[in-house]
Amino acid sequence: MKKYLAEFIGTFWLVLGGCGSAALSAAFPEVGIGLLGVSLAFGLTVVTIAYSLGHISGAHLNPAVSVGLWLGGRFSAKDLVPYIIFQILGALVAAGVLQMIVTGNGSAIGDFAANGYGAHSPGKYSMNAALITEFVMTFIFLIVILGATDRKSSPGFAGLAIGLALTLIHLISIPVTNTSVNPARSISQAVFVGGWALEQVWLFIVAPIAGAAVAAIVYKFINTENN
Amino acid sequence: MKKYLAEFIGTFWLVLGGCGSAALSAAFPEVGIGLLGVSLAFGLTVVTIAYSLGHISGAHLNPAVSVGLWLGGRFSAKDLVPYIIFQILGALVAAGVLQMIVTGNGSAIGDFAANGYGAHSPGKYSMNAALITEFVMTFIFLIVILGATDRKSSPGFAGLAIGLALTLIHLISIPVTNTSVNPARSISQAVFVGGWALEQVWLFIVAPIAGAAVAAIVYKFINTENN
Amino acid sequence: MKKYLAEFIGTFWLVLGGCGSAALSAAFPEVGIGLLGVSLAFGLTVVTIAYSLGHISGAHLNPAVSVGLWLGGRFSAKDLVPYIIFQILGALVAAGVLQMIVTGNGSAIGDFAANGYGAHSPGKYSMNAALITEFVMTFIFLIVILGATDRKSSPGFAGLAIGLALTLIHLISIPVTNTSVNPARSISQAVFVGGWALEQVWLFIVAPIAGAAVAAIVYKFINTENN
Amino acid sequence: MKKYLAEFIGTFWLVLGGCGSAALSAAFPEVGIGLLGVSLAFGLTVVTIAYSLGHISGAHLNPAVSVGLWLGGRFSAKDLVPYIIFQILGALVAAGVLQMIVTGNGSAIGDFAANGYGAHSPGKYSMNAALITEFVMTFIFLIVILGATDRKSSPGFAGLAIGLALTLIHLISIPVTNTSVNPARSISQAVFVGGWALEQVWLFIVAPIAGAAVAAIVYKFINTENN
Repeated sequence: MKKYLAEFIGTFWLVLGGCGSAALSAAFPEVGIGLLGVSLAFGLTVVTIAYSLGHISGAHLNPAVSVGLWLGGRFSAKDLVPYIIFQILGALVAAGVLQMIVTGNGSAIGDFAANGYGAHSPGKYSMNAALITEFVMTFIFLIVILGATDRKSSPGFAGLAIGLALTLIHLISIPVTNTSVNPARSISQAVFVGGWALEQVWLFIVAPIAGAAVAAIVYKFINTENN
Repeated sequence: MKKYLAEFIGTFWLVLGGCGSAALSAAFPEVGIGLLGVSLAFGLTVVTIAYSLGHISGAHLNPAVSVGLWLGGRFSAKDLVPYIIFQILGALVAAGVLQMIVTGNGSAIGDFAANGYGAHSPGKYSMNAALITEFVMTFIFLIVILGATDRKSSPGFAGLAIGLALTLIHLISIPVTNTSVNPARSISQAVFVGGWALEQVWLFIVAPIAGAAVAAIVYKFINTENN
Repeated sequence: MKKYLAEFIGTFWLVLGGCGSAALSAAFPEVGIGLLGVSLAFGLTVVTIAYSLGHISGAHLNPAVSVGLWLGGRFSAKDLVPYIIFQILGALVAAGVLQMIVTGNGSAIGDFAANGYGAHSPGKYSMNAALITEFVMTFIFLIVILGATDRKSSPGFAGLAIGLALTLIHLISIPVTNTSVNPARSISQAVFVGGWALEQVWLFIVAPIAGAAVAAIVYKFINTENN
Repeated sequence: MKKYLAEFIGTFWLVLGGCGSAALSAAFPEVGIGLLGVSLAFGLTVVTIAYSLGHISGAHLNPAVSVGLWLGGRFSAKDLVPYIIFQILGALVAAGVLQMIVTGNGSAIGDFAANGYGAHSPGKYSMNAALITEFVMTFIFLIVILGATDRKSSPGFAGLAIGLALTLIHLISIPVTNTSVNPARSISQAVFVGGWALEQVWLFIVAPIAGAAVAAIVYKFINTENN
């Protein structure tokens, strides 16, 4: 139960910190943090939770990560569903708290930090571009996670490498899909935005999980009986 | 006594570096560092002091942190009051030095880097939004501090994780309250600004300490008899 | 074979992440990540691969690095050619994937993230300025790589130091040449852009390899029989 | 001799990277890296050299650092003068190389990245504000260096903490003095700019060395017979 609560708190922080920086600070007049600041914020949610609650739950904070680690043989099947449930719950509570803050100066939440494609892509990228992007980004994300937590890697640095991988993924792909690679994050925003965001949320469940699954297979292949 | 001086120097640096970057560099014409640079500066004050003076005093630099660590059973009651006194003194001396620098080109200090809500929030967020924000941000800040300094976490990385947590907190919440999560930092600016800043400073004492206290309880709960 | 695949994936990520952030996010309206974000992205591709696939292939991701490590006595001659081939292949596949994404909103790839000098330098710097810059930047890059992976250096930090060296190199030199220091990265973009980019790509093969070679000699000299 | 060459290369890189990013990239149209990027660049020169050549020379790269370490009992008197000479030589050669690059598009070097006060301060801060700023910034810089390299601190993290301290110092103080805290860096730019820069360079020799000296005394005091 304690590890489920750690996933709850960690995913709460990922959504509050990442989506919160996007909704509150990205476009603040004159001195806004821009997409660079939002990218850093998403990555740092992972860095901070990895080093603080990682020893309790492993700090997945993302259903695609849990699936990838399970397929990669690093995570037990019996914890998969509860992890995903608590990740989604944490993300939803974060979206609720964020709504209270964002509307605290009379603003509407608008499109929040929802993920989208086509007309709802920040840079109007097509559904195919979005599918490729989310698939490839999550593929590499899981390669980094599986590799950095391998016993043969430098102990201690995994949290930093994985968090900074999420920063890098956002630096590349916010213009395409607003960057998901995380179904819990996407669902949390879609529930509050409704309409188009709910209609498009399937892509941000399917593509990240597919990318994570392929990464698990590829990593096993390049890692076995290493030279 | 030596550890009190370390807290004095460390909190001096937190306020001079964090509030100084805000007052001097954030809105510098054309090439200003913006809220992203200020967020980085606050976090780096903690990173730099944690790795240099952490072995002397633990590098709290913040009354809310000292309270949270005390309630979490990591810090002795007898040092609590002197730590808080030396933190506030260091913050006040930093504000004085910063005033000398800022006014060195004929500028007034204006609102300095004071924290506020309502009409004095950078983005005009309400008192309730400010209360929620400061409470939640300090709550997570202490979760990160308690978790990253746990014996079960990666040794050595705590200073980085905690400092970057402070950067992340600023990336999210400067538009709401100018970000406190630290009563010493807020008091130091309010004393120099006076008026509205002194009237509103209660929130930046109460909410951070409440968030820190709740974090101490929650961390004990999720950490005890871990799975 | 597995290490060649690791180089393929790693160089794929370097080009997709670095050039992708440049093509997609650098100049995004209002909130673009700018050259600072692109510099961070290039560096983080190395950080993330160094900590995840470094234990498989050493994470060179760059023919100039492989040549420098070979001349520095850290890498066996028999792997040199296959490493370079797989690096270039990974870079080319990344450019192809990036083209699919970039054109997904109807844009042309334009000059992609190709490297150039003279009229094709971002800041119109001459061929001589480009030669000096690419030579010196790669020289220091290899000094950092050889030094940070020396047995006498802090274990574990090499990936961070080397990745951040690449970030720093970009912070300095994007205006001059769009920054290469990596023939595989330059070739991949030149192949897709054609014309002037192919005509100028020689400089981004010759200067980085020359800089790497000189670094190997200098590092041996300052390191032998240390005081 | 080898350690002197390491100081030469390291200080060459500090000036080429830090001042180079300022002269070439800070104000690049639309996507310039700004003062935040320059601050990061200066800090990363130290991070990269600390982890690569630190095992050879200790990576001082700065006469004020060498003086502070000598007064703090960490560095032998016999190496002090040669270190300072090779630091200044490395800085001068870097300024020469940077001049060749900067002028490679027909630009003049203008004020390069020279340090100044009064009319030559970026934000027109007075000589007194400059003196206070350079003194306090170097004071804390040496506190961080002495503390982070103390046997009681986390091994390995010193290079990161010290480099990020230099980044933080720049985030605060570029508007005041263009940030020196390093006589070698200031001298190298002043020699190429001449006139006012040479007339004002005394402050950037005196204030950093004074700050470093006081830090050595204070650190000894707070560190001895620790609680």
